[in-house]
Amino acid sequence: MGKEIPSRSEDYSLWYNELVKKADLAEHSDVRGCMVIKPYGYSIWEKMQAALDKMFKDTGHLNAYFPLFVPKSMFEAEEKNAEGFAKECAIVTHYRLKTDPENPGKLIVDPEAKLEEELVVRPTSEAIIWNTYKKWIQSYRDLPLLINQWANVVRWEMRTRLFLRTAEFLWQEGHTAHASSAEAVQETLQMLDVYADFAEQFMAMPVIKGKKSEGERFPGAIDTYCIEAMMQDGKALQAGTSHFLGQNFAKAFDVKFANKEGKLDYVWGTSWGVSTRLMGALIMAHSDDEGLVLPPKLAPIHVVIVPIFRSEDELNMVTDEVNKILKTLRQQGWTVKFDNRDTQKPGYKFAEWELKGVPVRIAIGPRDLANGTVEVARRDTKEKQVMNLADVGTGIPKLLDQIQENIFQKALKFRTEMITKVDSYDDFKRILDEKTGFVLAHWDGTPETEAAIKEETKATIRCIPLTADGESGECVYTGKPSAQRVLFARAY
Amino acid sequence: MGKEIPSRSEDYSLWYNELVKKADLAEHSDVRGCMVIKPYGYSIWEKMQAALDKMFKDTGHLNAYFPLFVPKSMFEAEEKNAEGFAKECAIVTHYRLKTDPENPGKLIVDPEAKLEEELVVRPTSEAIIWNTYKKWIQSYRDLPLLINQWANVVRWEMRTRLFLRTAEFLWQEGHTAHASSAEAVQETLQMLDVYADFAEQFMAMPVIKGKKSEGERFPGAIDTYCIEAMMQDGKALQAGTSHFLGQNFAKAFDVKFANKEGKLDYVWGTSWGVSTRLMGALIMAHSDDEGLVLPPKLAPIHVVIVPIFRSEDELNMVTDEVNKILKTLRQQGWTVKFDNRDTQKPGYKFAEWELKGVPVRIAIGPRDLANGTVEVARRDTKEKQVMNLADVGTGIPKLLDQIQENIFQKALKFRTEMITKVDSYDDFKRILDEKTGFVLAHWDGTPETEAAIKEETKATIRCIPLTADGESGECVYTGKPSAQRVLFARAY
Repeated sequence: MGKEIPSRSEDYSLWYNELVKKADLAEHSDVRGCMVIKPYGYSIWEKMQAALDKMFKDTGHLNAYFPLFVPKSMFEAEEKNAEGFAKECAIVTHYRLKTDPENPGKLIVDPEAKLEEELVVRPTSEAIIWNTYKKWIQSYRDLPLLINQWANVVRWEMRTRLFLRTAEFLWQEGHTAHASSAEAVQETLQMLDVYADFAEQFMAMPVIKGKKSEGERFPGAIDTYCIEAMMQDGKALQAGTSHFLGQNFAKAFDVKFANKEGKLDYVWGTSWGVSTRLMGALIMAHSDDEGLVLPPKLAPIHVVIVPIFRSEDELNMVTDEVNKILKTLRQQGWTVKFDNRDTQKPGYKFAEWELKGVPVRIAIGPRDLANGTVEVARRDTKEKQVMNLADVGTGIPKLLDQIQENIFQKALKFRTEMITKVDSYDDFKRILDEKTGFVLAHWDGTPETEAAIKEETKATIRCIPLTADGESGECVYTGKPSAQRVLFARAY
Repeated sequence: MGKEIPSRSEDYSLWYNELVKKADLAEHSDVRGCMVIKPYGYSIWEKMQAALDKMFKDTGHLNAYFPLFVPKSMFEAEEKNAEGFAKECAIVTHYRLKTDPENPGKLIVDPEAKLEEELVVRPTSEAIIWNTYKKWIQSYRDLPLLINQWANVVRWEMRTRLFLRTAEFLWQEGHTAHASSAEAVQETLQMLDVYADFAEQFMAMPVIKGKKSEGERFPGAIDTYCIEAMMQDGKALQAGTSHFLGQNFAKAFDVKFANKEGKLDYVWGTSWGVSTRLMGALIMAHSDDEGLVLPPKLAPIHVVIVPIFRSEDELNMVTDEVNKILKTLRQQGWTVKFDNRDTQKPGYKFAEWELKGVPVRIAIGPRDLANGTVEVARRDTKEKQVMNLADVGTGIPKLLDQIQENIFQKALKFRTEMITKVDSYDDFKRILDEKTGFVLAHWDGTPETEAAIKEETKATIRCIPLTADGESGECVYTGKPSAQRVLFARAY
C-alpha cells in the first residue's frame, strides 16, 4: 500500500518516526522544533483530554486560563525555577513589525517597538499563577484552591522528536494551594494516582509510581513524584509528574493566608502535569510492525467495516446489512467507520486500518450474507473469528473489552520481565546493554554516585519506587549502605 | 453583600468591568494586556466550546493543532495579511536567558541566543496552516480539507478590555481548502450560519448576518461575512467572522491540486473564527444591575438551592428533602448547587447567585416542607412562584426552557427596536446620538464615504445585510445612488 514502515527490530527509532508520520498522527512543521498535530493524532489527544479532564473535575478541580507571557522579573522570582528553565526560554522582545524600507513587501522588527521588559513565553506557569494566587488567597476559607489549565508551553529544544520532545507542546498543568503541608502532600500523591489510573485504565500502559532523586527534581519543588513506563525497546519513559512545592512559590510571590486562629502563614503548593508526550508513550508501548495498536478507550474509531464486493449489486446487498450493524453499534456509543470506497481493494483497506490501529475490523461479503455471519479481526492479536450477524451487538463490545484488557496484560507482562534486580555494577552494566529495561539496584543516595553512573552508563534513576520492599543492601557503585533499591534505566 | 456593581444607566462601561470582576469571570493580569480567565468564567467558555465543537464536527470538520510561532518570512508571504497584522505582532527574537553577571539571582536575555530569523507569535494562523496544506494537498481527492483549531492568539493592543479586547485571547479558527470557488463560498456561508445558530440558540443573542465592506474586510480575504449583535447600551458587537479567501493564500503558499481532468489549479480557501470575545457579548447582551443573566444552555450552574433554617435540626430536615430534588434534577443532567453554607444568611446567598446569573433559585424552609412546596425564583424576570415538591422534576426543566426562550425574545425585541431606518444625514447623526443602536441607511458604496462618515460620527458599516429588501435609494451622505441599505452603528 506504499505506506509500509520499517520493523521495530530493524530500527526502532526509525520505526517510531515513520509510524507517527504514516499513521497521520503528526509531522514536523517548517517552524524549528514545532510539530503539527494532524487530525487523526489530535483526535486521540482529545480522547486523552476528555478522560483526564473528567478525572480532574471528579477530584474537585476547576479549569482556568492564565497568560502565555511571563514578564522576566516575575519569571525570576522563584530563583531555582527560573534557573532551571532559563536556558530553554523563548523571549518576546518587540511588539510590532514594520515594512522594510529597503525591501518593499518585506517586514522587519520595528526597533521603536522594543518592550521595556522582555516577556518569557511560558515554559510552565508556576510564576504567573502564584503571582495571581496572591490576589485570590487571604484566608483559610479560600483554600484549598484547586485549579487546572489546558495550554501550550514552549521549551526550546535543539534535538526534537515528534510528541516526545518538541519546542512547543500541549499539556495540562494543575496548580493547587493548601493550608497545610500534609494536605499539599496528599494532593500531590492523589494526582500521581490519577495519572497512574489514567495510564493503566485508558492507555493500557502499566506504570511504576515513585519519587525522583534530587537531581531529577522539578526546579523549585521540594519533592517530585512521577510515573515511569517501559517502552518496547527497553527504554523508560516518564509519563507524568506531580510536584510538592512546599512553600517555595508562596514565599517567592508572598502568598500568605490567615489560618483559623488568625495567624498569617505561607500557603503550601503543588503542581502536576502530563503532556502530548503521552502520545509518544502510547504509540511506543503497544504498536507493532504493521502500525498502531490503540486501546479501545482511546481509539478515535473503534470498529471499521470493510465490504467485500465485485459489483455494485453486491455492494448494495452488503450495505443493507452493514447499515443494521452501524445502527446497532452506534446506538451503543461506538464509533464505527464504513469504508465503502470503490477506489481501493479490501487488502489495501485492511493494511491501512491496521496502520491506524483500529481495534476491530469487520469484513462482510456475499458469502457471509448467505451464512448470516461476518469475519471479525482484532488488531492486537490479529486473530480472526467468524461471528453470527445476530451476535454482533453483544460480541463486538465484549471483544473491545477483551482487547483493552489484553493490551494492558501484554504490556504488563513485558514490563515485569523487563525489571531486573542486580547486585553488582558489572551485572548492572551487562543488563543495561544486553537485556535493557529497568534495573533495580541499591544506591547510596548521593548525587555524586547518581552522576557517575549516568556518565558511565547513560542510565538515570527513573524513580525511588513508592512500594519499596524494605530490603536494605549495598550500593552497586560504591558499596555504601542503601535503604532500598531504586529503579535505573536508559530513558526517553 | 459587598459585591454590588454600579447600575447600567449610571455608567455602562464601569458596570461591565465591575460585573466581569465581581462575578468571578476574569481579571486583568500583571502581564500587560493579558487577562486571567477565572474558573467561573472559564466554565462558561467550556460550555461555548463544547457546543461549537459539536457543530463543527457535525458539519464534517476535524480538529488539529499547528505551531504557535510563525517565522517572519512565512508570515509575510501573503502580503495583505502580513500588512494587516504587522502592527500588532509579538516577536520572539531570542531563545535563552542567562544569569546577569552584574546582578546575581537576576536573568538577562542571552545575546548569543539570538534567532537567525525572528518568530511571530500567531495573531491568526493562515500563514502557518497554508504552508502546511501545501504538503497535504496534491489532488482533488485530498479536498475538501476541513480543519479547525482551538488555540490562543496574540494581537498587541494598547487599550484593552476584559474579554472584548485583550493582547492574548482564546479562539477557534477554521481553515478549509476546496476544489472550486463555489464550494468555498458555500463553506464560508455555512459556517456563518453555524455561528448565527450558536449565537441565537445557545447565547440567546439575536444576530444580523451580513457582508463586510471592503474597508472592514479581513486582510487577505476576498469577502468577509460576519454576525453582528446589539448590546444594551446601543453599541454593536461583531460576534464572529467567516472569510472567503479565494485563491489568495493558495497562491502565496503555492498550494495547487490536480483536478479530475488532471489539470493543476490553485486551491480555494476559507477561514472563520469566534473567540473569548463572545463572553463579553454574552455578558453585555443580557445582564442587569443585579449581575449576570445567563441563558440556561451556557450556565455552569442551572439551579441553586438555598435552605432556610434557624437550627441544625431544621437544616437536617430541609436537607433530606433537598437530597431528593438534587437526585431528580441531576439524573436529568442539570447542574444543581446546594448552598448549605452556615456562614452566610439566605439574603446574602440570593444576591450572590443573582450576581453569578444562575437561572433558577429554589428556596426551601420548614414552612415549605409543611406545605409540600418550594419557592422558585427565576433570574431573568425575578418572578417567584410556589411549586409543589412533586412537580419539581417536570416544572424546573420547563422553566429553564422558558428562561432560555424569554432571554432570546427579550433581546430580539430590544434589537428590533434598536434598528432605525434613516433617509437623511441629519437623522443619521441624531439617531446615533439620541437613540443609538443600528442605523439602516443608504450608502453609495465607496470607501471614501464610509471613511468620512466614520470620521464624523464614529459609526462604521457593521455589515451589508444578507437579507436585503432590494430597496434602492440615495446615499445619506453624498446623495449618490445606492442599491440597498447597509447597517451602521457605533461598535465595540
